[in-house]
Amino acid sequence: MTARFDAVDLVRTKRDGGELTQDQVEWFVDSYVAGAIPDEQVAAWLMAAYLRGLSPAEVTHFTRAMVASGEVIDLSGLSRPTVDKHSTGGVGDKVSLVLAPLLAAMGAAVPQLSGRGLGHTGGTLDKLEAIPGWRSQLSPGEVRAQLETVGCVICAAGESLAPADRKLYALRDITATVESIGLIASSIMSKKIAEGTSALVLDVKVGSGAFMQERSRASELARAMVDLGVAAGMKVSALLTAMDVPLGRAVGNAVEVSEAVDVLKGGGPADLVEVTVALAEVMLELAGLAGDPRRALGDGSALAAWEAMVRAQGGDPAAPLPVARVAEPVLAASSGTLSHLDARAVGVAAWRLGAGRSRKEDPVSATAGVICLVKPGEDVKIGEPVLELRTDDPSRLAHATDALHGAFTIVAGAGEVRPTGPLIVERVG
Amino acid sequence: MTARFDAVDLVRTKRDGGELTQDQVEWFVDSYVAGAIPDEQVAAWLMAAYLRGLSPAEVTHFTRAMVASGEVIDLSGLSRPTVDKHSTGGVGDKVSLVLAPLLAAMGAAVPQLSGRGLGHTGGTLDKLEAIPGWRSQLSPGEVRAQLETVGCVICAAGESLAPADRKLYALRDITATVESIGLIASSIMSKKIAEGTSALVLDVKVGSGAFMQERSRASELARAMVDLGVAAGMKVSALLTAMDVPLGRAVGNAVEVSEAVDVLKGGGPADLVEVTVALAEVMLELAGLAGDPRRALGDGSALAAWEAMVRAQGGDPAAPLPVARVAEPVLAASSGTLSHLDARAVGVAAWRLGAGRSRKEDPVSATAGVICLVKPGEDVKIGEPVLELRTDDPSRLAHATDALHGAFTIVAGAGEVRPTGPLIVERVG
Repeated sequence: MTARFDAVDLVRTKRDGGELTQDQVEWFVDSYVAGAIPDEQVAAWLMAAYLRGLSPAEVTHFTRAMVASGEVIDLSGLSRPTVDKHSTGGVGDKVSLVLAPLLAAMGAAVPQLSGRGLGHTGGTLDKLEAIPGWRSQLSPGEVRAQLETVGCVICAAGESLAPADRKLYALRDITATVESIGLIASSIMSKKIAEGTSALVLDVKVGSGAFMQERSRASELARAMVDLGVAAGMKVSALLTAMDVPLGRAVGNAVEVSEAVDVLKGGGPADLVEVTVALAEVMLELAGLAGDPRRALGDGSALAAWEAMVRAQGGDPAAPLPVARVAEPVLAASSGTLSHLDARAVGVAAWRLGAGRSRKEDPVSATAGVICLVKPGEDVKIGEPVLELRTDDPSRLAHATDALHGAFTIVAGAGEVRPTGPLIVERVG
Repeated sequence: MTARFDAVDLVRTKRDGGELTQDQVEWFVDSYVAGAIPDEQVAAWLMAAYLRGLSPAEVTHFTRAMVASGEVIDLSGLSRPTVDKHSTGGVGDKVSLVLAPLLAAMGAAVPQLSGRGLGHTGGTLDKLEAIPGWRSQLSPGEVRAQLETVGCVICAAGESLAPADRKLYALRDITATVESIGLIASSIMSKKIAEGTSALVLDVKVGSGAFMQERSRASELARAMVDLGVAAGMKVSALLTAMDVPLGRAVGNAVEVSEAVDVLKGGGPADLVEVTVALAEVMLELAGLAGDPRRALGDGSALAAWEAMVRAQGGDPAAPLPVARVAEPVLAASSGTLSHLDARAVGVAAWRLGAGRSRKEDPVSATAGVICLVKPGEDVKIGEPVLELRTDDPSRLAHATDALHGAFTIVAGAGEVRPTGPLIVERVG
């Protein structure tokens, strides 16, 4: 805060497509957090930034100002190299649950400070809270200690990290200014920079079930985030991964934990394993570690790290996970091969069954979700279940079923099956 | 208010270049005035409207909603046809002071409900308040009575007219969303429709000293306002008039009243008379009245109406006007012909001398201003005064003088004098 400016001037500059200086961005963010600029001026600026765009320099200034608004965790001096992964959010995306203990088992320290889910994609903390006793709130001291002893931690990003981002995100949410690449990139990266990890892999989901439905936009977001990480002195790469079909078969909270444990035991769905291993390989590379992730999944070492992590955070890894009272099948109306299964529709159905929330203060159900019994390319006979809807509240079934109209197609001839593209679309950085 | 909507959806619609329905616009405006939509959502919507534009239908809905937010004065049943004039604001623009009594003298009823000046263009009420005793606050009953007895009234538009516009204008002012043609047109026209006049002439100023500096933008604004008036059942036309040079010689409050009285006495500067007469002719046409405005200015009838209006509102038309304590000349640095005189620079100088305000709660000086002793095309000798700066506060002179750097040029040969275009640029509607 080296100079004083007029907030209206900064709104006008962005409105007219101009670029704010570092001093101006810092003053704007600091003044907003301090309550010296009212919401309405920042809202107008955000809409101008949404429609006019932000330059790479502005996004960098903005990110730095948000990092500087709060605490930055110091993870230097750990005996292991730190590396984290962040996903932009997908349907059935339980990869974090596997990656954190997997990388811990292979010698890294994974400081995954996470948020909760909103909308049709789930949140990692919501999933882990399905484990009896597990707690998401750890102090910075507990995080550091657990990284030394266990090698990984998945916990809630505290209020002290990038508070400017929290205030700005809440404003963006009610002013239709969330979906701006510059603002998304700075929001994600400000928290990851404040978290203190020295290496980061970004899983940028692209497809019907993802925030970014077009590859060009996903690439642009990946590039923006990689550049911000590099500017902050971080080792960072991004993988664009496909999100047209749910990842794995389970979509929900407890059901996704269960599927993640299957992968940690050396099993689990092939697509989920493929994405997990691809991300693990990049994380190892950035952390300067060697080793074969498939071996660590097969030899029990990743599973042991998982159990240690759950136990360290108060959970019982051996306790049975809660199961929904109702399991309602969605039946095949004809025999043939499933030609597609829309990730967004399945995500919305799981959300409506109770697995997700519409507002951040809403509770979520541990047991609700959707099981994809048949996935694209697999055969099904008329009258057999394609999906299974899980919930404790049967009144939610009708609304969830509505979301699934046209979500999958069964074709008689295998030649009509829509070809699926590669799961790993592109690497950036 | 026939349906309920989600404010974020309406922001998103406008952000993406979509069009709001009449129901949506009415709900949005009504809910904002009622305090049910917060400033930040409306600010984001205003910025989206600024950058994406508003369709003619949206501007019409918006205007109707603002009119409906308050009282609409009923002037039907008067014995005279009602006709008013509104100017978008110019430097030295004291035309309203002449037109209201002129049209009253020619058989019309002129219900001029005005605002105050902001920035470098003056406000009609500020000028009239230089007259000892004159008061701007009249009740609707007093307005109506004075229209019957005197034929004209110039007073403050009460809080009850288009309160939505007042609330929205205050928000636009701090969010850099003032300069949108659709929003300007609806702001002006909502108040004129609520005022109850059945005919209206718009004086849309174009040039360096005007809000609209480009003719194409001024035409667009004129067309938008004429369309809104027609949609509201009003007879309405607009004249685009030149505002590159101050109108007349006096710029300020008391000094402009004095010059207006000169015109009402049959004298005054030729440019001021030309614009006044052109506007008067269109007003007469729309009001269905005959007569020659120049005759009414020459025969004392317009002056008599002026004196009656001033007296009816508590002023003494015979009282001397206040005069500034300081009159500082700006001298010619060479001999020759004045080739131009920038209206904006003169307006800013008068503002800085105290004639205008920066915030609506600021007071203005009755005596401050600038006298243009030499106008373009006129000769001046080295060392003679070109301008005279008037103020009661000599500490303001330096800052006012700064505004006048490059404001005028003196050329040696008459052939180098920049030709001035016509004062009356275009008629719309």
